[in-house]
Amino acid sequence: MSTSRRDFIKLASTAAVASTLTETAQAQTGGFRRIATEETFTVPEIIEAATELITKNPDHEPGWLNYISGEFPFYDTVLRQMIDLEDERLGLMDAAGVDMAVLSLWNPGVQMFEASQAVELAKITNDQLAEGIKRHPTRYAGLAAVAPQDPQAAAQEVERAMQSLALNGILINSHTNDEFLDDQKFWPIFEAAVANDAPIYIHPRRPPAQMVEAFNDYSMDRALWGYAMETSTHVLRLIMGGVFDQFPDLKMVLGHMGEGLPFWIHRLDTIGGLPTTVTTIKRKPSEYLRDNFIMTTSGMSWDPALKFTIEVLGADRVMFAVDYPFGSYERDAKWLNAADISDADKALVYSGNAERVFKITG
Amino acid sequence: MSTSRRDFIKLASTAAVASTLTETAQAQTGGFRRIATEETFTVPEIIEAATELITKNPDHEPGWLNYISGEFPFYDTVLRQMIDLEDERLGLMDAAGVDMAVLSLWNPGVQMFEASQAVELAKITNDQLAEGIKRHPTRYAGLAAVAPQDPQAAAQEVERAMQSLALNGILINSHTNDEFLDDQKFWPIFEAAVANDAPIYIHPRRPPAQMVEAFNDYSMDRALWGYAMETSTHVLRLIMGGVFDQFPDLKMVLGHMGEGLPFWIHRLDTIGGLPTTVTTIKRKPSEYLRDNFIMTTSGMSWDPALKFTIEVLGADRVMFAVDYPFGSYERDAKWLNAADISDADKALVYSGNAERVFKITG
Repeated sequence: MSTSRRDFIKLASTAAVASTLTETAQAQTGGFRRIATEETFTVPEIIEAATELITKNPDHEPGWLNYISGEFPFYDTVLRQMIDLEDERLGLMDAAGVDMAVLSLWNPGVQMFEASQAVELAKITNDQLAEGIKRHPTRYAGLAAVAPQDPQAAAQEVERAMQSLALNGILINSHTNDEFLDDQKFWPIFEAAVANDAPIYIHPRRPPAQMVEAFNDYSMDRALWGYAMETSTHVLRLIMGGVFDQFPDLKMVLGHMGEGLPFWIHRLDTIGGLPTTVTTIKRKPSEYLRDNFIMTTSGMSWDPALKFTIEVLGADRVMFAVDYPFGSYERDAKWLNAADISDADKALVYSGNAERVFKITG
Repeated sequence: MSTSRRDFIKLASTAAVASTLTETAQAQTGGFRRIATEETFTVPEIIEAATELITKNPDHEPGWLNYISGEFPFYDTVLRQMIDLEDERLGLMDAAGVDMAVLSLWNPGVQMFEASQAVELAKITNDQLAEGIKRHPTRYAGLAAVAPQDPQAAAQEVERAMQSLALNGILINSHTNDEFLDDQKFWPIFEAAVANDAPIYIHPRRPPAQMVEAFNDYSMDRALWGYAMETSTHVLRLIMGGVFDQFPDLKMVLGHMGEGLPFWIHRLDTIGGLPTTVTTIKRKPSEYLRDNFIMTTSGMSWDPALKFTIEVLGADRVMFAVDYPFGSYERDAKWLNAADISDADKALVYSGNAERVFKITG
């Protein structure tokens, strides 16, 4: 990494970007408390470590090379905005009437690193996250990073994050080293999540080696398509693999209006019930989706998908999310303010569900 | 194959199964002409050839082994019903008030065979399909099989099927030998389809080698999940790869209410429009989906998905389909008869769109 890019990261981490926005939250609330639930941040230590890793092996995490190359000015802005937890972010939230952001570490988080480094970086990240929340307790909540590379250490970090750091859940960026969480070696993480009442946000990641080749053209391996295909496939593996029979109290959160799964409920139940479908699960796939999952609006600020998901899962199963800085607080709050659903449902989507799922009392 | 199973296939091909159903079509029509548009058939030559292939190499087409092993009585019934174009099928259609079935060769059709054998089997299949339609011109229409393994021969078969056999379009079972149709070597097929005004039904198939490994557990490689993931990914490759810029008049049909793609329209347009998305297409992804595609209800007899797809694509973009013998004429017609859409929309979904797309005049 060049000296100038190191300086840039230091500058960004001090987050001294003054907000020039003049509108206040109060002017736009319209009676709703607004909590955004998939709000991205990172810390300089992650960027340093990722840059070192990608510099050594550019193929390790395709996409990251774009971020660190300096080729796209867009990414410089995004990196700065992800590190900032102060004036710029809060100013944009204020202007949109967003009261609170539930922060989580940028995809793929610590999951791109070797196990012991990942465990260490998760702790560093979670400590900084807790400090940011302590500085702004009415504005931020947070989901802890964990390193599934070391399931026992991840389970311990779940406990530390929930008990010592008082965070609100955890977020896992889908597969780790091309392995899915239906592999029972990862289940200590679920055990710890249930024991500590920690919801797990399954965030998309670029598809694993065993499926990515079909997505490598036309940028289909990322947000356009591959993210959703990977994450929905991963989640269905969890359901069909019996994770929720073993852990019936496990709560999970999915972005992008459930990564397409709500659209498939009827077919999943029909085909899932055939004698030719090999599974030992006790209930219909849809029952797990309704009871163990809650979906967010990240990247899906679109009335038809919102209304559909509320229709098939219930208004208590959808939460507002912007995915700042990839999404815009202003644009997405403007959308949901005007969305064609009842005020009662809107109150649930904007904050009622997030308060319940993430135990946000302040 | 055992002698008894050969006898069984011969028996089935004579299709002398008497219908015991007493209700008549007239009693149930409710004023709608009903055309079902993804109705599966096969011919003894395909079953013989597939059995020979799978007996030599059981891994060649996983799933087929179940069909030919005799292990599941369910499959014996299905094989018999697929071969029959006479009393049993017509009786079930009658009882449900289904006037016409648009027949197509069972997945993966000729696409599992070596090129020259596939070309030959496609001709044999299409000839028998045309004969079946000639026997029952008011009850059947048909989509031709082609062998993408030999694109030039496939293009010639498109012309023969549309001109000499007067069929109504073609059906391709998605990838061929793990290759997708965005590869320009296949484009002679699209050229012939446009020249002969043949809509192309893209039917699901088990995911190709480069993505299937993520789907191999819990029967996720077939109708439960892998089919939809494979076909939607394939179709998005066609869109992002510029097929519809090159062939703006190309018409395609997708089953399973568009294989999930309607749910993603907003996100496809948003992410597809970012400077970081690598594509040269001229329009938004949603514009191709609306202008070049029409979706069927196969396997998705479910009001929420029907209403959603009509809302986002239009009532002129959805067609009734049962996927007999995997679906039930009685159950699916009963569903659509009662579905919560207007009678005008229902008339389009039941037959108006199929008459237009497949040029069904009789």
